[in-house]
Amino acid sequence: MTPPNPQPANNNDHLVQSDDPEHPANLIPALCAKFWTLGWVTGTGGGASIRDGDLVYIAPSGVQKELMKPSDIYVLSLAAQAASLDRRNRIYLRSPPNHKPSQCTPLFLAAFNKRGAGCCIHTHSHWAVLVTLILEQQGPGKDREFRINNIEQIKGFGRGYGKTGNLGYHDTLVIPVIENTAHEEDLTEFLEEAMDKYPDTYAVLVRRHGVYVWGETVHKAKTQCESLDYLFQLAVEMKQLGLPWITDIEPVVPRRNS
Amino acid sequence: MTPPNPQPANNNDHLVQSDDPEHPANLIPALCAKFWTLGWVTGTGGGASIRDGDLVYIAPSGVQKELMKPSDIYVLSLAAQAASLDRRNRIYLRSPPNHKPSQCTPLFLAAFNKRGAGCCIHTHSHWAVLVTLILEQQGPGKDREFRINNIEQIKGFGRGYGKTGNLGYHDTLVIPVIENTAHEEDLTEFLEEAMDKYPDTYAVLVRRHGVYVWGETVHKAKTQCESLDYLFQLAVEMKQLGLPWITDIEPVVPRRNS
Amino acid sequence: MTPPNPQPANNNDHLVQSDDPEHPANLIPALCAKFWTLGWVTGTGGGASIRDGDLVYIAPSGVQKELMKPSDIYVLSLAAQAASLDRRNRIYLRSPPNHKPSQCTPLFLAAFNKRGAGCCIHTHSHWAVLVTLILEQQGPGKDREFRINNIEQIKGFGRGYGKTGNLGYHDTLVIPVIENTAHEEDLTEFLEEAMDKYPDTYAVLVRRHGVYVWGETVHKAKTQCESLDYLFQLAVEMKQLGLPWITDIEPVVPRRNS
Amino acid sequence: MTPPNPQPANNNDHLVQSDDPEHPANLIPALCAKFWTLGWVTGTGGGASIRDGDLVYIAPSGVQKELMKPSDIYVLSLAAQAASLDRRNRIYLRSPPNHKPSQCTPLFLAAFNKRGAGCCIHTHSHWAVLVTLILEQQGPGKDREFRINNIEQIKGFGRGYGKTGNLGYHDTLVIPVIENTAHEEDLTEFLEEAMDKYPDTYAVLVRRHGVYVWGETVHKAKTQCESLDYLFQLAVEMKQLGLPWITDIEPVVPRRNS
Repeated sequence: MTPPNPQPANNNDHLVQSDDPEHPANLIPALCAKFWTLGWVTGTGGGASIRDGDLVYIAPSGVQKELMKPSDIYVLSLAAQAASLDRRNRIYLRSPPNHKPSQCTPLFLAAFNKRGAGCCIHTHSHWAVLVTLILEQQGPGKDREFRINNIEQIKGFGRGYGKTGNLGYHDTLVIPVIENTAHEEDLTEFLEEAMDKYPDTYAVLVRRHGVYVWGETVHKAKTQCESLDYLFQLAVEMKQLGLPWITDIEPVVPRRNS
Repeated sequence: MTPPNPQPANNNDHLVQSDDPEHPANLIPALCAKFWTLGWVTGTGGGASIRDGDLVYIAPSGVQKELMKPSDIYVLSLAAQAASLDRRNRIYLRSPPNHKPSQCTPLFLAAFNKRGAGCCIHTHSHWAVLVTLILEQQGPGKDREFRINNIEQIKGFGRGYGKTGNLGYHDTLVIPVIENTAHEEDLTEFLEEAMDKYPDTYAVLVRRHGVYVWGETVHKAKTQCESLDYLFQLAVEMKQLGLPWITDIEPVVPRRNS
Repeated sequence: MTPPNPQPANNNDHLVQSDDPEHPANLIPALCAKFWTLGWVTGTGGGASIRDGDLVYIAPSGVQKELMKPSDIYVLSLAAQAASLDRRNRIYLRSPPNHKPSQCTPLFLAAFNKRGAGCCIHTHSHWAVLVTLILEQQGPGKDREFRINNIEQIKGFGRGYGKTGNLGYHDTLVIPVIENTAHEEDLTEFLEEAMDKYPDTYAVLVRRHGVYVWGETVHKAKTQCESLDYLFQLAVEMKQLGLPWITDIEPVVPRRNS
Repeated sequence: MTPPNPQPANNNDHLVQSDDPEHPANLIPALCAKFWTLGWVTGTGGGASIRDGDLVYIAPSGVQKELMKPSDIYVLSLAAQAASLDRRNRIYLRSPPNHKPSQCTPLFLAAFNKRGAGCCIHTHSHWAVLVTLILEQQGPGKDREFRINNIEQIKGFGRGYGKTGNLGYHDTLVIPVIENTAHEEDLTEFLEEAMDKYPDTYAVLVRRHGVYVWGETVHKAKTQCESLDYLFQLAVEMKQLGLPWITDIEPVVPRRNS
């Protein structure tokens, strides 16, 4: 165990120094390394953020995600940020010396502020991008929602913010799709609009870009993100085989109960 | 080597504490971590159970499968469970403090009770789900069995419960497909029915859900599950290339024997 | 470093005990573990054998390939085996206590005896099987050779047994396809026939089964097997995109040389 | 920490001996091992080179890329090489004892000399090869450039040599395609021509062969190579789904700014 290095008081480096592997500053690099092997954060794309109470930990912009270190992490205060008059000016409690803040920052903050999320993950997964392209191919009006039902993995999602329990096998999972903007920060207003319009969703697809997924905890954000990527992959494969995403299947009545 | 922690007598924590990597409480986490990399237990889906004599070890519900620990494992007695009047009320010899029992439990028990299996694996593999969807597309009456023949990997399966030897290259492997139910526990009666109807099978597909695979030992359950996933993947790829799963191929007669 | 265990004189266990990671008894498990991650030896299928002078080291039948240990390895003498009257009766210098010999043994021996190979690898790779299925779909007469040209990776193959140098970019790589037999040992005569008919080949495809690949050294066998699997995968993907495997491409003449 | 071995003065082995994991002689093997898992350098194909000031470090020809060691690395002086009258005769400051120089050497040097690159990567990625094959299928005149726009990952590329900033979401990424030659060294003049014709590109595709990607630093070369491979994969998948690579999408105007 190395003793913490003395740091300049104003950079709060102690916020990213912990021996606990579950500490957000350790967990974000571990998660991002895992996501890299899944093809979610290729070529510095994508990222992840964890909220612990008022503190928000964020991966920086432009790093190789499988090589990230705790010392690369930004920390900011949610309350201080909310009190700021200029939403686009962010004041960090702690900044890494050689990085730039992630353009995803305001999008992660939206999940924390509007949904009370504890973790938000952004991936550039091929499957997510392909799903938005397949929807786009179906024409205007049919390209704003990904819908799938009657797949067991749908049970991996909560019913919605503040609701108890998870979706069921026969439920339709609906993920809104927003347009991509030239600058990632500009996605924020559209992400927030989608959150307002789809109060139960834990994810928003961004056309030709990827997906944002969140959850109350790191566990929930990560497993929902995995389940969603599984469903996106399945949906693309179903499309290639000419199988519809939405079906009308009569629930099976167990005889024991009848 | 850490000395075993003192535990409350009634929770039998010693049942999941061993230095032997082959002990079921160590083996289940190791297997599940491997299955996670294969995409079989994404987003907490799927699971595995091992029977050692009368003791059944089961992964809990809702954990990240690649992060599971021996202390997460449930243990129950097969005999005590069989003697219980209420099949749905399960009495655990040992329970982890922060988990819920897996909904797969009665399905694993069916493999142990009806087949004398030593291990049962449940995956949400894409290939398994896609095979059930392709069958479904072929219409009612043609969607209840996955059949494939004349592929070498078919040799990876035993001839059947209580039978000696493995299937041959020219044999047709038949895997029954059961309908998915809203609640996973309700699958049990249909799984048991399929076991009765297909006494030689080591696996049952669940439509739009995944597959259950078992074997007399961990080795056999795991290698049969791998071989089956290989065949499911091949079957999907054959479908994409317009190749039939069942063919009529004349056995080659080796000249040396003729 | 553990001192070698005393072993019964007649089992020659010292033949599989070495601290050198390049020793065949250590190298075969390391290679097989790597091949498992590539999907080449799923569910105990496939295998590998290394020849060091007169000694042949072979992975046993039916083991989980990613878990193999040096103590699982069979060793036999090529000369003693050649002198035996019954080719099907093999006398092992060293046998593991709990395994059966691999059915691939006579096929590996063919590569060592007829080609002087130093290593032979057998995979059940999906890509190999799909290539044989695509050829089969083209009808009798067109299903006995895999041919591909004008792909850079073709340079990964030697020109042939006893020849110098490698194939060129414009050369056509030809891999013969033999029919699968009910019993793997019965493949031997057909493999040997293919070796006679295609004296330059370093590989033979087995329909609906996989591929055998060899080389003068472990390095050459392994890299040729990788290059071939790459080409099989590319060939399947080309088929899916409607691209032909054989093309007529005019060589580019570098101006500097003209 | 081992003390450096004494080496013959004329082979400069100290140039490849360092405890710093970021030293080029350590970084090239680490990168190549990672690239092997991505399928970029299968069967000894592909490679990587790093320039540190005047010194150029190059992986040798014909090694298993996931097993490379610092002692396998060649080192040459860019200035000494440029002063040589015969471009094809290369004088190495340091050579490994048992290897041959890579045929990619003059192509790597082109990136260093003409673009001031700090790192150049060459892959045989399936996706790169398939993209060139799909372009070829579109016929002469339409096969010399890979073009894609309106995909977020395009932001992973710099605007061009000596320019500031990166491409935007709506920008069209253009990668030239050159013909493959029988001998890899002969590609050099065509690569250099493509660099002249496309002064802003950081990559050149080689038909039926792979791709060369470079960047000012190892970080930039590697992340641009990852982003490009991501786009190649997406492009192949889009082709399979009948989706066009170039689209006309109206930029979204954020309301906050309007």
